[in-house]
Formats: sequence, structure tokens, C-alpha cells
Amino acid sequence: MGKYYGKGTINFDNAPSILSYGSAVGPKEGEGPLADYFDYIGEKSEFGEENSWEKAEVALQKNALRAALKKGGLAQSDISFIFAGDLLNQCVCSAYGIRDFDMPFIGLFGACSTMAESLALASVFVESGVAQMTAAMTSSHFCTAERQFRLPVNYGGQRTPTSQWTATAAGCAIVAPRKAPPYIKAVTFGKVIDMGVKDVNNMGGAMAGAAYETINNHLANTKQSVNDFDMILTGDLGSVGSGLLIDMFLRDNIEIAATHADCGMMLYKTKKQDVHAGASGCGCSASVLCGLILKRITEGKLKNVLFVATGALMSPTMIQQGESIPSVAHAVHISKE
Amino acid sequence: MGKYYGKGTINFDNAPSILSYGSAVGPKEGEGPLADYFDYIGEKSEFGEENSWEKAEVALQKNALRAALKKGGLAQSDISFIFAGDLLNQCVCSAYGIRDFDMPFIGLFGACSTMAESLALASVFVESGVAQMTAAMTSSHFCTAERQFRLPVNYGGQRTPTSQWTATAAGCAIVAPRKAPPYIKAVTFGKVIDMGVKDVNNMGGAMAGAAYETINNHLANTKQSVNDFDMILTGDLGSVGSGLLIDMFLRDNIEIAATHADCGMMLYKTKKQDVHAGASGCGCSASVLCGLILKRITEGKLKNVLFVATGALMSPTMIQQGESIPSVAHAVHISKE
Repeated sequence: MGKYYGKGTINFDNAPSILSYGSAVGPKEGEGPLADYFDYIGEKSEFGEENSWEKAEVALQKNALRAALKKGGLAQSDISFIFAGDLLNQCVCSAYGIRDFDMPFIGLFGACSTMAESLALASVFVESGVAQMTAAMTSSHFCTAERQFRLPVNYGGQRTPTSQWTATAAGCAIVAPRKAPPYIKAVTFGKVIDMGVKDVNNMGGAMAGAAYETINNHLANTKQSVNDFDMILTGDLGSVGSGLLIDMFLRDNIEIAATHADCGMMLYKTKKQDVHAGASGCGCSASVLCGLILKRITEGKLKNVLFVATGALMSPTMIQQGESIPSVAHAVHISKE
Repeated sequence: MGKYYGKGTINFDNAPSILSYGSAVGPKEGEGPLADYFDYIGEKSEFGEENSWEKAEVALQKNALRAALKKGGLAQSDISFIFAGDLLNQCVCSAYGIRDFDMPFIGLFGACSTMAESLALASVFVESGVAQMTAAMTSSHFCTAERQFRLPVNYGGQRTPTSQWTATAAGCAIVAPRKAPPYIKAVTFGKVIDMGVKDVNNMGGAMAGAAYETINNHLANTKQSVNDFDMILTGDLGSVGSGLLIDMFLRDNIEIAATHADCGMMLYKTKKQDVHAGASGCGCSASVLCGLILKRITEGKLKNVLFVATGALMSPTMIQQGESIPSVAHAVHISKE
């Protein structure tokens, strides 16, 4: 097993492989700039489940898992453990989705950080020899999340400039012992950071501090700098949170703008598709990673990516009680080499 | 690292220690038969937070963590990673509780299986050398859970005979490399099992199948039998679920009644305290484990306990849509030797 590098960071000497990956998205995401990279694009956001948005998201997540298995030539029985979670109350999409598969299930809640959290845990299990093969998965759906966290979709409320559009998307990655790129070299689990933001329509502002903390910890613990990466990929700060993150590093005299990209800014044609500050939701970073990014790393077009999924640990109940929004970010170093 | 024993089960050659543990409960639990074993008993269910049941549960969880740290003579900085989750929407008690601590946070959702899920993951991290010390924690609160999952508490609705009383309780265990008992010898992560139960007041019935599946898998994968354990401790099937579990094993000609105990049947004076089918909630098995059981193992009064926390992955939204309740159970073998 790899060295333990200091608080929060784990180094993988053997660097497990991402053996396969799948992504599934809705029609709006299918009209975005990454359409060519997704394994499945639904014609309608219902995905064949006419009476329940939740069941639609379950279907979406199952499509991502099936795509990952199929592309890897894998059977359900090849997966020793599946790590999954989602945004919905009681993580129903993961529980109901995985109910139909014969796999030990480790349920997670990390809000939109779940893709990094699940991938990091899946990698620890493989690197340590506990498992031969693991899966990491998450999803989100515009209609389930908006109704639950903000307003009923049909209400048609005006969206604020800082608001992000919850992606209807899912991603799944299969991790296995070192074989071929992409490799997972190290991970950093984040602390709970609270910027004092109370606006449920400003997730980027709430999460920027968590991204800053985790990126800093990862770089310090691994004795690396921003220059060691082709891309520091946050997901999903959107335009507001991305701007804040860049500014926070500038205060330390560190220039990350040229290296930084954000999944929330990549999933849609942000202006044309009228998504205000960008995309959000667990499925945003999951589908960008399992659609575009892992493919680019496999092809060698990207060599070292620090994937930092950020989660606003937001609860409507706590917001109604006047509380601010705590956040967390987890980092995964994914490499061609 | 230990051998991988077959689907879902992980064996620990080095068997990490539970170095310390803490528990915190409310006044009703403090009137129960285990009162002498808890580190903290609140005089009132508000725990000093007069305006929010959620914040009361946050306070409860922090008390369990502080007790575990204090009894172990540990500082916050000794904990490399904390694994935690709870029942509430967006796991707020864990997120808001851990916000005040300087520890990398890995958020989980496993409903009432969370104590076993967190303990199992915390053990994998220690056994594999990824961490020197980890914490596993969960909580529940009668007033937060009942309002969220069933009816407003003040409504005073009649409780059905199969209903269980959500415990106001929290538990936290600190895992470290092998040093002194209790030791963690093996864990089994469960699959999602659905018995088709749709009654939110029959959690025991919904979860019995998951407990059966996981216990069977653990025994088969480790080539052990019921007789290898002093106690198979489910949490929290209550009287209804416990009866079903015993019957399911009887159909296989396996007699577990003499070995089986259930946290849901141990926390209250079940009849006198009017809790119908027993106790439930993440905090039930957490406080019974981190109050009574780990102490008994340390003293040598129990030698081998298979702790099988069960979770009903229940969502009010899905129940309203006519869905049944999927469940999961995770097992942790805790030993004196």
C-alpha cells in the first residue's frame, strides 16, 4: 500500500487503473458541447419512467453503470464493491438503482463531491488489495434536485445570476489493479469548510473555499505545485465559484487560471443554453469526467489531471433555520503515466 | 493487507483495534436498561439547542466524538479520517458536526446500517496502512427522524404495533493499528435487498432479509458457523424483524435464537417504556455498540461478536410513489482475541 502523505492525502505506489467508464445524460446535456463523448443520451428526461422523476434518475444511473460494464467487457460479478451516492434525500437513486445489481453496496453522501469521494474510496480498496475490481458512481437530475432543494420545477421561478443548472447526468468508473491508463496516483479527502454563504442559489460561492482547502492540502502533502498538472479540474464551481477560487490562489501569489477548468463551465454552452453560472449536481462532474476527461487522458491529450469534485452539503431544513452551507471537496490525481 | 475472502467480505490479518469509543444519548435512553454504560446522558432532548432538533442532534454527535477522543486521550489531530453519516436529509448532523473539527470527512449514507458501514471502512483504512487512526460515527434523534420520515411529532398520531422508536443517541469508535482488544477481524459489506415491504412503520420486516443475506454471506465467505460467535448482534430489527430473521434461518435448519441479540431490543425497557417493536435509528446500534458491547468485549465477557447493523434505505418520496423499501446490512466481526 502507498505511503500516507499527511493529513487527508493517500499516495498509491501501484496506481490502480480506471479500467472502464460510462456516462449517461439527458437531452439538454446532449445538446451541449460534450455530446459526442457520452455513452447514452436520453431523448426525454423521463428515460422511460413517465410517473416519477426519481425513477428517471434511477434509470439514468443504471445506464451509466451498464455502459461502464459493457465497455470494459465486464459482468456484474466482476465488481467486488460499488461505491455510490446521489443528491436526493436518502440517496434513493443509488439504493434503488443498485437493488437490481448483485453487488455489495457502500452508500455515500458527499453532495456534488460524490464522484471524487467514490472514486477515491474505490481506489483505496483496489490499491490495498481488498478488492480486485470496484465501481464508483453518482448521478443527478434537474427535476428531482430542483424540486427538492429549491422550488417545484413547474413553478417557473426566476433564476438568479449566481444559480447553476443541475445536470441530468450520471457517471460510473470501474477501478482495477494497474494495467493501462488512466492511473490513479493519489487522493486527498477534504475537511468540512464553511464560507458562511446562506444563499441556496450561490453554490459556487459556498464551495470555493472547500476546493481551495483541498487543492492546497493535496499540493502541500504531495510536495507538488500547480505546474505539475495539465489541468486542475474542479466540479462544479461554475463561473462564480471559479472566479473566487482563482482569486483565493492569487492572494497567495499562485496563478491557477491557466491550469484551472471547471466541470460546471464545460457541460453546457453556458450562455446559449441559458444556464446562468453554469452546471451543477453530482452528475455534472461525473459525466464530464467519465465522458470527456478520462478519454482525453487515455489518448494522452491530458497527462496529469487533479480532479477536485466539490459538494455543498446543503439541506433545505438547515437553510430555513438560518444556517450557512458547509462544503467539502475531495481530490483525485488521475494520470496518463 | 488481509485476504479478500469472497464477495463482500474482507479479512483483516492484523486485526485493527478499537482504541476508544464514546456514546451520547437522550433522557429516554437514559431511563433504559443501558443507562450505566453511556458516556453522556442529556437532561433534555434539546441538548442546549432550544430552536432546532437538527442542531440538537448535531450536539449529540459532537458529544459522542468528544467522549471517544477524551477516553482515548486523543487530540483531533490524531484522527486521519472520519467516516460518518446519519438519517437526516443531506446527512446534516455529520456535516454540521464535523464542520467544527479539523478532520478529513468521508460522508456516508447507509440509514441505520451506518455504524457498521463506517466502522468497516475505518478498519479497511487502518488495516491497509492508509491511516494511523480513523473515527466511525453516527447518530439519530427521535424528533428529527419522526418528523422527516413519518409524522410531525406534535401530531401525536397513534403508533402501530410494528413501529419502532427512533433512538436519540450517537456513538463513535476510534480505530487504530492492533494494540489491545476489541479487535476487528473481518467485515462484510451487504447487497441491497428488497423484501417488498411498503409500510414505513415496519422497518424490521423491511430489513430482516438484508440481515439474513449479510450474515449468511459472512459465514459462508469466512467458513464460519453461528457457533463461532458468542453473539450475532443485529441492529436494529426490533421484535418483528428479529422474529423474521430467526425464522428465515430456521428454514435452513440453522438455530440462531440462542446466539442472536438485537440492539433494537436492548436500548429500552421495551414494554415499560412503550416503544412497541423496539428501538431503531442509526444511534440505536451505535450507542448499544459503543456503550455496552465494546465494554463487554474489552472485559472478556464477550469474545466474538458479529455486529450486523441493518438499514432501511427508506425515502418518503419513494413510498408516496408506491415503491417498497430496499435495505442493506453490513457486518463487522469484533473479537477479544
